[in-house]
Amino acid sequence: MKKNLVKKEIVDRLLNFKKSEKFIPLHSPTFNGNEEKYLVDCVKSNFVSSVGEYVNRFERALESFTGIDNAILTVNGTSALHISLISLGVNRGDEVLLPAMTFVATANAISYIGAIPHFIDVNENTLGVDSDKLEEYLYKIVRIENDQAINVETGKIIKAIIPMHTFGHSVDMDKLHRVAKKFKLEIIEDSAESLGSKYNGKHTGKLSKLSAISFNGNKIITTGGGGAILTDSDELASKIKHFITTAKKPHKWEYEHDKVGYNYRMPAINASLGLAQLEQLAKFIKQKRELAKEYRKLFKNFEDAYIFKEPDYAKSNYWLNALILKDTNLSIRNYILKKTNLSGFMTRPVWKLISNLTIYKNSPSMNLDSSKSLENRIINIPSSPWLIK
Amino acid sequence: MKKNLVKKEIVDRLLNFKKSEKFIPLHSPTFNGNEEKYLVDCVKSNFVSSVGEYVNRFERALESFTGIDNAILTVNGTSALHISLISLGVNRGDEVLLPAMTFVATANAISYIGAIPHFIDVNENTLGVDSDKLEEYLYKIVRIENDQAINVETGKIIKAIIPMHTFGHSVDMDKLHRVAKKFKLEIIEDSAESLGSKYNGKHTGKLSKLSAISFNGNKIITTGGGGAILTDSDELASKIKHFITTAKKPHKWEYEHDKVGYNYRMPAINASLGLAQLEQLAKFIKQKRELAKEYRKLFKNFEDAYIFKEPDYAKSNYWLNALILKDTNLSIRNYILKKTNLSGFMTRPVWKLISNLTIYKNSPSMNLDSSKSLENRIINIPSSPWLIK
Repeated sequence: MKKNLVKKEIVDRLLNFKKSEKFIPLHSPTFNGNEEKYLVDCVKSNFVSSVGEYVNRFERALESFTGIDNAILTVNGTSALHISLISLGVNRGDEVLLPAMTFVATANAISYIGAIPHFIDVNENTLGVDSDKLEEYLYKIVRIENDQAINVETGKIIKAIIPMHTFGHSVDMDKLHRVAKKFKLEIIEDSAESLGSKYNGKHTGKLSKLSAISFNGNKIITTGGGGAILTDSDELASKIKHFITTAKKPHKWEYEHDKVGYNYRMPAINASLGLAQLEQLAKFIKQKRELAKEYRKLFKNFEDAYIFKEPDYAKSNYWLNALILKDTNLSIRNYILKKTNLSGFMTRPVWKLISNLTIYKNSPSMNLDSSKSLENRIINIPSSPWLIK
Repeated sequence: MKKNLVKKEIVDRLLNFKKSEKFIPLHSPTFNGNEEKYLVDCVKSNFVSSVGEYVNRFERALESFTGIDNAILTVNGTSALHISLISLGVNRGDEVLLPAMTFVATANAISYIGAIPHFIDVNENTLGVDSDKLEEYLYKIVRIENDQAINVETGKIIKAIIPMHTFGHSVDMDKLHRVAKKFKLEIIEDSAESLGSKYNGKHTGKLSKLSAISFNGNKIITTGGGGAILTDSDELASKIKHFITTAKKPHKWEYEHDKVGYNYRMPAINASLGLAQLEQLAKFIKQKRELAKEYRKLFKNFEDAYIFKEPDYAKSNYWLNALILKDTNLSIRNYILKKTNLSGFMTRPVWKLISNLTIYKNSPSMNLDSSKSLENRIINIPSSPWLIK
């Protein structure tokens, strides 16, 4: 198809999907369950802060839903990543690997402790870490010394990797674990977008020591703002709970704090909203998987763009659908963004690569060819569960 | 009175005040206003996260209540202090003055940016910074160079001071401002406990560049967890708003972040609770001032202990009442703590001095005689507004 026609055809197909005059946001929450009931109940209990019963109830429900032994609620996803890094012993000056194509909060969480974000590439099949390319890269730049990976170019320890399950699609975790093991890297799964997504039948996060979730307003379920850490390790769980409650030792009235602690615990009022949301998650996932199917139909046999489909090993929550252009052409991408947004059908390009932000442009990085290409070709399209009845 | 009789007499007077069998917590919130209505309304609006309308409404209401031009809501008081320090340019390695007798979060917020807590003494008349003693101390250890205070003993810049309005009683701000000006110190008022308290007719925080509030579950009004920064400077306010929303530049769909930002914005669901609480604040303050009067009556003409009374220049919210023993006698203090807590009348000693915690014991410090004495003599007693009908 001619370029001029391609862009018009894509906009037509998307707007045809819109159906009504109503503004369609990229993602907005659905509150059709016990939200109001639990919020009111939480207020009536008088325990709206972090020691409230709803914190326990939401945590136990998350554990039951994900099959992971410990859920620890936090004020947001950024704090969940921050504390995960601290609890695994990442120190000032260490390097931490992360995809260049993710939300900036991950790089920020690394920076908070004075560690250094080190950018890696993703691949087009999973939108997540390209483990083959990563392995090849690490062979070139890493020397193992005292059971630690030393970056021979910077002299720093590469301590951990934060794979991101982009838009709710799991990274190929088995492959990544093999590489991580070889190069002595701790793994923290960034499951901010993948609550409810599975890798080979297991919930994302289940295969790694730690996993971080976000319940921000745009996520598949929300607590207003909030997050959680998931871990099968009871030891890590209690360490983390201590860190996020100002590292206060338990005592009826004495104030003894044995670490520089944080005030990162989710309040019960937010947890009450989260519990009501979690009760509807299975339904949301069903609706979102249905919606993805609809979008795929819309672009079936279309030559110049496609709707991203979950990898074979995955069962995704399809948090955010992605239209991917086959060729890089910024004028086509921007035309589509402008036309759809002007018509009240909200779309968005993927994040600008973090490695291109002025604040991170001097950070170490591998070759990012695939990320650079995807950066200019991905358009996220509306994905609220309520788009499917 | 004999020591043996003193401790029994104090316990008797306190428990006599208890009246019923019901457990009396140190401080618990009162939800008799629009809490449930606003929470439900917030859910119905579908905007429960940080861009919701209730964030604006609660901020404007706080500005109107305090008479300070800008209120910026944050996830908690710790984050409010953290961002205040960053926005005033406090850097890694700088020293920041704070009372040794305060909650540990203040020292932690300083540590997050790699700055160094430097402990100062309080006085018994205000429970806040002793400005006279501070001035004398700074004369000894400070050399002014390029308009900055250099600690001659450590070689570090002393950049700022965080006075704390302990239990809701204002520091003598005019005195402190004179000292701060002389020694080129920025002031951040720690108003975590003093929402509604006044200094010479002005709301605490009004006299300084920045002031930080807490809405934790134990505070005079609560949002579950939350905080705010107050400032008359529009420039600082917009800088802070930028910092706490991941430093993202405004654009309809592009992700450009120009600083290492934070995810510190209060969600609307918490703000809706806060707005309902703020509507009742004037009443809570009236009740708490009345309660303080009752406690003072209880210990009128009592020789061995007294109830702390607001300084002449202050009109306090009496967030937490303090019984202060005239003499230091830990066995008496501990007897009172044990007996009252066992009887369901919750009491607590003041915080352990931060300067004595292992994590901060090597930090610079002035002579802390007065704090050390108060540490062993202060007992906080139940102060919920609902104790007065």
